[in-house]
Amino acid sequence: MSTSLLDELTQALQCLPSVGPKSAQRMVYHLLDKNRQGALKLSNVLERAVHEIGHCKQCRTFTESDLCHLCVNEKRNSNGVICVVEMPVDVLAIEQTALFSGTYFVLMGHLSPLDGVGPDQLGLNLLESQLSSGHINEVILATNPTVEGEATAYYIAEMSKKFNIKVSRIAHGVPVGGELEFVDSTTLSHSFSGRSEI
Amino acid sequence: MSTSLLDELTQALQCLPSVGPKSAQRMVYHLLDKNRQGALKLSNVLERAVHEIGHCKQCRTFTESDLCHLCVNEKRNSNGVICVVEMPVDVLAIEQTALFSGTYFVLMGHLSPLDGVGPDQLGLNLLESQLSSGHINEVILATNPTVEGEATAYYIAEMSKKFNIKVSRIAHGVPVGGELEFVDSTTLSHSFSGRSEI
Ligand SMILES: [Zn+2]
Ligand SMILES: [Zn+2]
Repeated sequence: MSTSLLDELTQALQCLPSVGPKSAQRMVYHLLDKNRQGALKLSNVLERAVHEIGHCKQCRTFTESDLCHLCVNEKRNSNGVICVVEMPVDVLAIEQTALFSGTYFVLMGHLSPLDGVGPDQLGLNLLESQLSSGHINEVILATNPTVEGEATAYYIAEMSKKFNIKVSRIAHGVPVGGELEFVDSTTLSHSFSGRSEI
Repeated sequence: MSTSLLDELTQALQCLPSVGPKSAQRMVYHLLDKNRQGALKLSNVLERAVHEIGHCKQCRTFTESDLCHLCVNEKRNSNGVICVVEMPVDVLAIEQTALFSGTYFVLMGHLSPLDGVGPDQLGLNLLESQLSSGHINEVILATNPTVEGEATAYYIAEMSKKFNIKVSRIAHGVPVGGELEFVDSTTLSHSFSGRSEI
């Protein structure tokens, strides 16, 4: 017996993160039984997304246009501050604070020599050309507080200093509302070394 | 600004059961960043599944053929026993026990007059014509032990008796390996009323 279309669909759904055989099967029956219209819509949008969504020519985040909706904003560009993050979701998280009015640079990862991810893979030549333009006053490093994120931040900090651009790193510490005893020791040590006088 | 393709995809993914805005967003970034090939494959299989998968003409389960792979089996058909279940997943569950060698009838639901689900919606006329053929010796009722499942079982039991066909109901009780104290009272009462002499 050749593979049935039901099996093929159960298999294909497992390309989604944290979807295993059991939940894929549940999805198949749900879609076929209750929402064929939604399934067709999903099929259509998926295909268009794969073909049409690329990277912003300025900040590298996902977008279907040449420039993302933040990079086309003249006010943000004239702000002179670039915030460097690892992933597109990080942009959304920072945007939600409504505290930042500059532009972003999305690395789409972090330096990881063992996985073959060097400066080129992170588009750091593109970032360097932006830093060399003379329009940037500050680079805010918002990579993750992991070994790789810190190494990446350090690399970009050195690069920025070549152009005499001010570099800052976002603060890491005890989350607001969090309790000390539940915070891991790495975070706590960040919290100590990053302490400020009051 | 019109809705971006990213937003459209995040929206479309929420047709999947238990996928909310947060996990849909994670899926979008994962697919675009790491598995565009898988996304295209999913798009393609989804569309084919919606157009090609219908219901088995004999047992009503999902299949892309006229008859599902169980209903084309002559041995199963000549067995003379029909097991009635609510959903296609129930067929899979029973098949895993490898204890049943007859055919199934999949109601695709249960009687629920308030939701407009009557005998016609469950294909009971199709089941009745099978019962009237003279080839069926027993009907095993494996609907769920819920109020609706019991009512549906009762309805089909009455129908089967009209043709002098033996009717049985699968046993409900304490799961093997389960502990009495953790079993709900409905199950426990089933377990008592279904007790057998030893
Ligand atoms: Zn951009
Ligand atoms: Zn069938």
